[in-house]
Amino acid sequence: MAGNSFGQIFKVTTFGESHGAALGCIIDGCPAGLRLSVDDLRRDLARRRPGGGGVSTSRKEDDEPEILSGVFEGRALGTPLTIVIHNTAQRSQDYDKLKNVYRPGHADMVWDIKYGFRDYRGGGRSSARETAARVAAGAVARKFLAENEVSIRAWSQSIAGITAPSPNDDEFSLDEAEANEFRIPGRSAAGKIASKIEEIRSAGDSAGGVVECHVNGLPAGLGEPVFDKLDALLSHAVMSIGAVKAIEFGAGFSVSGMRGSECNDRALPLAGSRKTKYLSNNSGGILGGISNGDSLVFRAAFKPVPSIARKQITIDNTGKEIEIEITGRHDVCVCPRAVPVVEAMTALVLADLMLRARADRNVTF
Amino acid sequence: MAGNSFGQIFKVTTFGESHGAALGCIIDGCPAGLRLSVDDLRRDLARRRPGGGGVSTSRKEDDEPEILSGVFEGRALGTPLTIVIHNTAQRSQDYDKLKNVYRPGHADMVWDIKYGFRDYRGGGRSSARETAARVAAGAVARKFLAENEVSIRAWSQSIAGITAPSPNDDEFSLDEAEANEFRIPGRSAAGKIASKIEEIRSAGDSAGGVVECHVNGLPAGLGEPVFDKLDALLSHAVMSIGAVKAIEFGAGFSVSGMRGSECNDRALPLAGSRKTKYLSNNSGGILGGISNGDSLVFRAAFKPVPSIARKQITIDNTGKEIEIEITGRHDVCVCPRAVPVVEAMTALVLADLMLRARADRNVTF
Amino acid sequence: MAGNSFGQIFKVTTFGESHGAALGCIIDGCPAGLRLSVDDLRRDLARRRPGGGGVSTSRKEDDEPEILSGVFEGRALGTPLTIVIHNTAQRSQDYDKLKNVYRPGHADMVWDIKYGFRDYRGGGRSSARETAARVAAGAVARKFLAENEVSIRAWSQSIAGITAPSPNDDEFSLDEAEANEFRIPGRSAAGKIASKIEEIRSAGDSAGGVVECHVNGLPAGLGEPVFDKLDALLSHAVMSIGAVKAIEFGAGFSVSGMRGSECNDRALPLAGSRKTKYLSNNSGGILGGISNGDSLVFRAAFKPVPSIARKQITIDNTGKEIEIEITGRHDVCVCPRAVPVVEAMTALVLADLMLRARADRNVTF
Amino acid sequence: MAGNSFGQIFKVTTFGESHGAALGCIIDGCPAGLRLSVDDLRRDLARRRPGGGGVSTSRKEDDEPEILSGVFEGRALGTPLTIVIHNTAQRSQDYDKLKNVYRPGHADMVWDIKYGFRDYRGGGRSSARETAARVAAGAVARKFLAENEVSIRAWSQSIAGITAPSPNDDEFSLDEAEANEFRIPGRSAAGKIASKIEEIRSAGDSAGGVVECHVNGLPAGLGEPVFDKLDALLSHAVMSIGAVKAIEFGAGFSVSGMRGSECNDRALPLAGSRKTKYLSNNSGGILGGISNGDSLVFRAAFKPVPSIARKQITIDNTGKEIEIEITGRHDVCVCPRAVPVVEAMTALVLADLMLRARADRNVTF
Repeated sequence: MAGNSFGQIFKVTTFGESHGAALGCIIDGCPAGLRLSVDDLRRDLARRRPGGGGVSTSRKEDDEPEILSGVFEGRALGTPLTIVIHNTAQRSQDYDKLKNVYRPGHADMVWDIKYGFRDYRGGGRSSARETAARVAAGAVARKFLAENEVSIRAWSQSIAGITAPSPNDDEFSLDEAEANEFRIPGRSAAGKIASKIEEIRSAGDSAGGVVECHVNGLPAGLGEPVFDKLDALLSHAVMSIGAVKAIEFGAGFSVSGMRGSECNDRALPLAGSRKTKYLSNNSGGILGGISNGDSLVFRAAFKPVPSIARKQITIDNTGKEIEIEITGRHDVCVCPRAVPVVEAMTALVLADLMLRARADRNVTF
Repeated sequence: MAGNSFGQIFKVTTFGESHGAALGCIIDGCPAGLRLSVDDLRRDLARRRPGGGGVSTSRKEDDEPEILSGVFEGRALGTPLTIVIHNTAQRSQDYDKLKNVYRPGHADMVWDIKYGFRDYRGGGRSSARETAARVAAGAVARKFLAENEVSIRAWSQSIAGITAPSPNDDEFSLDEAEANEFRIPGRSAAGKIASKIEEIRSAGDSAGGVVECHVNGLPAGLGEPVFDKLDALLSHAVMSIGAVKAIEFGAGFSVSGMRGSECNDRALPLAGSRKTKYLSNNSGGILGGISNGDSLVFRAAFKPVPSIARKQITIDNTGKEIEIEITGRHDVCVCPRAVPVVEAMTALVLADLMLRARADRNVTF
Repeated sequence: MAGNSFGQIFKVTTFGESHGAALGCIIDGCPAGLRLSVDDLRRDLARRRPGGGGVSTSRKEDDEPEILSGVFEGRALGTPLTIVIHNTAQRSQDYDKLKNVYRPGHADMVWDIKYGFRDYRGGGRSSARETAARVAAGAVARKFLAENEVSIRAWSQSIAGITAPSPNDDEFSLDEAEANEFRIPGRSAAGKIASKIEEIRSAGDSAGGVVECHVNGLPAGLGEPVFDKLDALLSHAVMSIGAVKAIEFGAGFSVSGMRGSECNDRALPLAGSRKTKYLSNNSGGILGGISNGDSLVFRAAFKPVPSIARKQITIDNTGKEIEIEITGRHDVCVCPRAVPVVEAMTALVLADLMLRARADRNVTF
Repeated sequence: MAGNSFGQIFKVTTFGESHGAALGCIIDGCPAGLRLSVDDLRRDLARRRPGGGGVSTSRKEDDEPEILSGVFEGRALGTPLTIVIHNTAQRSQDYDKLKNVYRPGHADMVWDIKYGFRDYRGGGRSSARETAARVAAGAVARKFLAENEVSIRAWSQSIAGITAPSPNDDEFSLDEAEANEFRIPGRSAAGKIASKIEEIRSAGDSAGGVVECHVNGLPAGLGEPVFDKLDALLSHAVMSIGAVKAIEFGAGFSVSGMRGSECNDRALPLAGSRKTKYLSNNSGGILGGISNGDSLVFRAAFKPVPSIARKQITIDNTGKEIEIEITGRHDVCVCPRAVPVVEAMTALVLADLMLRARADRNVTF
């Protein structure tokens, strides 16, 4: 029983293999009347595309989206909204030699076990290229969120072990994050990473990293106990991105060493404003799985890109040992391009939870 | 739109408030023919119950489960299986003074915002008592998994900053973990934690910790790309447990500092056995969101219990500052009792994914 | 993959076997704040209970509902609302002789095929007793609908071939329908049916009938194209009641002989009122699967009760022919008691669609 | 909360407006390995297309399907299968004059109420053209069913009040049904209908009819009590087709006048064969909502096409009375083209229920 849909009311289904005719998505449940055009989709798709810089693959992906249904005279009809991105740079023959080989760190083998066979070209549906459809769907969700004054911003918080400045540091700058090829919010960290990445690339290797995401403007009251809590759904969404191996909210893993008196965030008295403020944000903006009105904060760890130039030993589909060298240009670290994907998945969760809250009518926005 | 159900085929809905008449669950989709009795539910419910030791609350909870439907002559009928646990120790009056107060670190305020009002007695549905229903449902899932030779074992990996021996250490013992009140798999660590917890309790404070979970015997091929991946669903499930703030699989957050050549697990040639073995398990047994046949490994971080004896400053439901002292006996650290809850949520995910794989028929077990 | 849940936002799961410990339901998604008590459930449960009259079984069913969760201080919490009805009149031994026999017109055989075994006592979960849980859930939905000025009324439109007066007839009276044991809205028809039923009962036989249902006050705009249309969901809901073999809306089957000029209902100009009125209601209040603001009208045909006193020839679970006589008192015609069940299923559909419309926010009510 | 998906395991989402860029569907859950090509889709799409005969519209619809994802080297991958049909004959300007008018018998008004605005060109998403996507999806389901020896055949059982021969009549012929433009399974009835239809067309009017559907080869045990019964799901599916106003199974509405002794189908002793046979089929092959191994039989009534050439009085979107004449060529009776749509919806239900039964593993096929 397949699992290519996400969301209950703002429900997204993605489709497409890396080297098939196209990939894309259907959104069933986009609110009628939402102003939307292809332009709204282009910005994040461009941010996800290989930048040509040091960290990214050089595969040419135009990723020009087409809206096949669901929009009329610039507004969402309330009918299924279909977005298609045609695959233009299909060089299937490159992959013939990998047809029977199970690349280390990839899903090749488990895919064969699960489905009996697979589209081996570029990883087929297990390719990171699938995230383009997520970003397109996420762009629609972000449009809806923006109308409700919710904004989502992510960046590379560390790459190859080198950590970016935190939002409290003077050097921290989201403009800088968008300006450099690593999406690192600080110029000097970006410089250090550039050297490190070049060193790793020369060694035929790859690097991991961490993406941090903040959401501002979120109303309190989002999240559905006891299973569809805000943090539970975000974990589901973010962990479903290929290379993610960990996620933490607010103080995250460090809560395990804290005392209760230290970890509990103190609410400040309401003065004029109806919105509660807190002295600290160890909770990451979530209490009991429900947004508390503070900034939503989480981090996700990405493993190093498994396709590396170095020789590796693995097995083929007969179970025999084989030495392989993966050619072609691959990203050294996935984080910079993962930033818009993390934002997109976050947007899908939040748009869905806002519509779920609307049905219940107690939270108004 | 509420979210009290989990699973697609093995679908669990829990119900009940901490001080209401009862709590429990319905499982719609328990395979017909599964041998089941109330005895199968008792063991894990007892493990979740307060032990009377240093770390746990002394509230008396009998937690005797009753099966109202779905079992006939010792076997599951394939009809909805309903389990009820009556609340016997309801001391609602204790909670009257907290009626209008928002306890720090609790969901009191967001619950009022979300639903307009709430059952303030012992946290109502946001109480950790709700996990008893999860444990009962999980016990049914574990019975099904046991018949398919899948076993799940969790333990406290750290408490109050003191770390347990790892499975590779000589001292590591799961029997020991079940024998001590901290579910720590090593005697000396258990001793150190005992002193530390006593110190924290005396200070009117509480402690966080980490629970680690391993699954053995899992067939390769479980997990449904691209959204219902094994790690995505486990993250959803585990993060929905009250105090969890972080989850990581295999090497977890440390992958962010690794190189690809180091992180990729090397598959060993198949020899005789049809089951792939690996030189390392940084993946935690999951590739591309699908089980790879190795042990499934993850860790979850729990925040300190927010109910502490120390005075705290917070606000009431009019937004005014107020000083509170939370009386009654509360757990100092939730980890020991959270171990069976983590196991239960893991069981729910795995039972559901095994049944989903059956529908597709490519994975056989 | 089981199917014991109905609805998307107002989501009901029923449980229970005819002669098990209890039956009942969970409603996940009852709007927080709805005023509700056990009293609200009693009226329809009493209407479903055997009346002791000519048409109904004499099994004693107290059907006293208990609310286990989801209600606090007289209002729905927004948490799962659990209703349990304990089975008090379990005479299992009566059924031992039917253990291996497949009663004609019953689900005994297909249940054995589907699940491998079954609770043979009184039909187990395939018993009409299961509808008590539907009626309890429906009563909650009706409370919500009543607050939104939607009312549902059904009656026996024909029994044993004798037709009741239509709503346009002078004799038509819903008070009369509730007053007589057949729920026939006209005294003289009720009299004729009484004689006919007595004749059929004496002959050891049973009778079919038709239930008609009208809904008033429904806002226009309910129903979700293209699959979850109002009529599609009502058909799903009503056809899931045991003995129903047909359903029709508005002019129903007779549309097949109509001309378009005759079948199209003419909308009248809006004058003052914002609600469209029509010259006729062949549509049954539904256009394109969406409510049009007129009365919702449908009819469902019920087959004769399959348990008859007469000797019948059938097979047993070895496939051998066998003659059986079904003893015990059974309803002659199911319609009178089916009336509240039809109303309940209608209420479940409408409550759910109203909440679905709320999420979209274009339909206001 | 939209409703454009159908099915639980074989899950179909359709998209597209009548005069948008394209329409189509995604199937999430098509079993991996199913042999499939565009050719498999063409036959039923051709049967749904306007035939150019007396009953059908003359709008040119090429309806050439394209598979965008989910198939590799002639087999389904187990990934989402996307089918797109581009709209080639868009003459939007024809519809400008209907922009503000609510056509009688159409969903124009309720659509405006529900969504706030609508794509008025050719009915937008409420157009019968939407069924092309259903037929494409149904063709995939039929391929899967054919591999499991299940076959579905429907035909026009009556048109404009003229009834076709029944399967027991000598004249009954499914080949004949496919040969004539009415899909009537008997030549002489086809002749009479031809004259009648011509008369109705000349009068600027339209006609209703009934489609009958039989399924052979269905294993016993399909259908999921208590809500997702076989007949409940079929009713949901078939009633979601635009013009359907009624559905009945087996003896259908006539059961309301039957006695139990007459209505109960007598099972015959098993002799050699493991498949139960019956003396009659009043049940339509369904007992307790589960297939009993006999032929599945149902009928659906279609209302006359609401777009008629005659002048009609209706209202516009300001609520004012207006006289309209609907130009363009429209079908006189929808039944012939509805036959493949009924088959497709039946196929979707059955494929899904077979996969649901597989998950439970008691029914084998």
